[in-house]
Amino acid sequence: MTHVITRLAAAILVVFCPAAQVQAADPLPSWNDSATKQSIIDFVSKVTKEGGPDFVKPEERVATFDNDGTLWIEQPLYNQFVFAIDEVKKQANQHPEWKTKEPFKSVLAGDMKAVAAMGEKGMVEIVAATHSGMTTVDFNTSVKQWLETAKHPRFKVLYTDLVYQPMLELLAYLRANGFKTFIVSGGGVEFMRNFAEKTYGVPPEQVIGSSGVTKYQMWDASPALVKEPKVFFVDDGPGKPEAINRVIGRQPIFAFGNSDGDKEMLEWTAFCQRLCFMGLVHHTDAVREYAYDRKSDVGKLDKALDEATAKGWTVVDMKNDWKTIFPPAKEAP
Amino acid sequence: MTHVITRLAAAILVVFCPAAQVQAADPLPSWNDSATKQSIIDFVSKVTKEGGPDFVKPEERVATFDNDGTLWIEQPLYNQFVFAIDEVKKQANQHPEWKTKEPFKSVLAGDMKAVAAMGEKGMVEIVAATHSGMTTVDFNTSVKQWLETAKHPRFKVLYTDLVYQPMLELLAYLRANGFKTFIVSGGGVEFMRNFAEKTYGVPPEQVIGSSGVTKYQMWDASPALVKEPKVFFVDDGPGKPEAINRVIGRQPIFAFGNSDGDKEMLEWTAFCQRLCFMGLVHHTDAVREYAYDRKSDVGKLDKALDEATAKGWTVVDMKNDWKTIFPPAKEAP
Repeated sequence: MTHVITRLAAAILVVFCPAAQVQAADPLPSWNDSATKQSIIDFVSKVTKEGGPDFVKPEERVATFDNDGTLWIEQPLYNQFVFAIDEVKKQANQHPEWKTKEPFKSVLAGDMKAVAAMGEKGMVEIVAATHSGMTTVDFNTSVKQWLETAKHPRFKVLYTDLVYQPMLELLAYLRANGFKTFIVSGGGVEFMRNFAEKTYGVPPEQVIGSSGVTKYQMWDASPALVKEPKVFFVDDGPGKPEAINRVIGRQPIFAFGNSDGDKEMLEWTAFCQRLCFMGLVHHTDAVREYAYDRKSDVGKLDKALDEATAKGWTVVDMKNDWKTIFPPAKEAP
Repeated sequence: MTHVITRLAAAILVVFCPAAQVQAADPLPSWNDSATKQSIIDFVSKVTKEGGPDFVKPEERVATFDNDGTLWIEQPLYNQFVFAIDEVKKQANQHPEWKTKEPFKSVLAGDMKAVAAMGEKGMVEIVAATHSGMTTVDFNTSVKQWLETAKHPRFKVLYTDLVYQPMLELLAYLRANGFKTFIVSGGGVEFMRNFAEKTYGVPPEQVIGSSGVTKYQMWDASPALVKEPKVFFVDDGPGKPEAINRVIGRQPIFAFGNSDGDKEMLEWTAFCQRLCFMGLVHHTDAVREYAYDRKSDVGKLDKALDEATAKGWTVVDMKNDWKTIFPPAKEAP
């Protein structure tokens, strides 16, 4: 009888209350059994142990993740920049002046070396031009179409297939332990929201990113939000703790990044005045993904790597710590 | 036996899964039985009816509320402005120059008529001066101290006791029906977060407001966010849909305000392309609270009232629709 009731109780919990489901034995199966994996599990065990010295109330379990290079691929070019380049080509007919005007001229000529030589200024111009002059609704349509069709030049699969399986497991593991997982990225907030919920399980209101000025106005006789070619906020470097403070309003106790743009977010997290976790993904696997750090233009990891080493933060050695890189079912082209 | 198991199952649900608790018969007991109350209940019933034509998935049930005059009192002065005035007095010793410099001189002399005559410019100067030059941690300490001690001039109770009981019930009712409730206010986001969670059950990351520039920097040899006397964003009028888009990333299906500063938020919500709810609190009760609308400097309600009438939005007649105004246990001084 007791047995029946116990089984019944368990069934009720599973059916009606998913959060109460029993954890699988290994919550991070794509992580090799290493000190890296252990540091994550130790941290989560400590902050969730009720009555323990490091216990943190669920509402204060805030975890922040960078996106490019931390949750999905960022080589050979930031994916959003590839989208912007594809948009230049798509929108070229409406902009005859682009044929003679840099940086658009080089983009249309396929001369990516010339585009790269123009540096950040050229990149910002390309993003601003292709991310403005439309409503947020139309912009989202363009992003969705691109995400459903554009393929990565090396892996020949959709960009959303090139997310890191071990990090998907980490996001799910944290959420199963009462954490709220946020994305805090230099990427555009509206761009990311078009895949963050489906791909990462992170709802729109937990995505923080860079943004352009967006104005509320009438558009085709309807109220709309219209994107302007002006930067509103750059969510990178010191901008990350600033945005976390403004949007989340709590200091994270867990933060993960992969580049110098995440340094301040990790430093601020490290100052959380209790047990906190700081992690970096170090791209060390040229065979299965890419190997890059101090000298890379994309996702440069230099000062943050020194600081992580000096302070004992967790550094993922992608080659040795991760059993698989991308979700297995989608590795085939 | 079946009876025992049913009771056991119910007990398990109640203990382990609070969301599964059975709804009380009347979710809005402080609302008189009127068309206003019915419009709310009808809306919630329709959008939560699975399989119904107006069903909305839980993750899309976004409700946004203005704060001043919608969730708590805003007369005779916006509460945050009262805080700023009190801070001028508290900080006066550190600012000897204020004795001879307006608008501080008039504040210190207690000449509120002169302060009012300086209009918005004076108000912004007072807020900027008292809300900057410190870390966010120190600012929060000041706000908390003020909230725990300052009393409203007419009701002689803490400001957090002057929240509207019917709106507290509405927030709880919406959340019990799968809504995420957000505050979207012209008030300062950091100011509001010091009471929103405890008072309204709205966590920090669901509070959107105006903000000043806040810079990440070293402060007393520690990383800190330091408040500067510069406006970053004004979350009022068209700023409300702009901020909702940037921070939440979804269009609300339910929005409540009380003044012309909420007009654009309600207009944008009305354009949600499915069943949506737009509500205004009309302050009509001079006896139990205040009566004001078109001619008030604080919480002016003019154009939005015309639009609500023309378009059939729900307008709360405070005097007739609300049984009680403030939480009953705290009405005594």
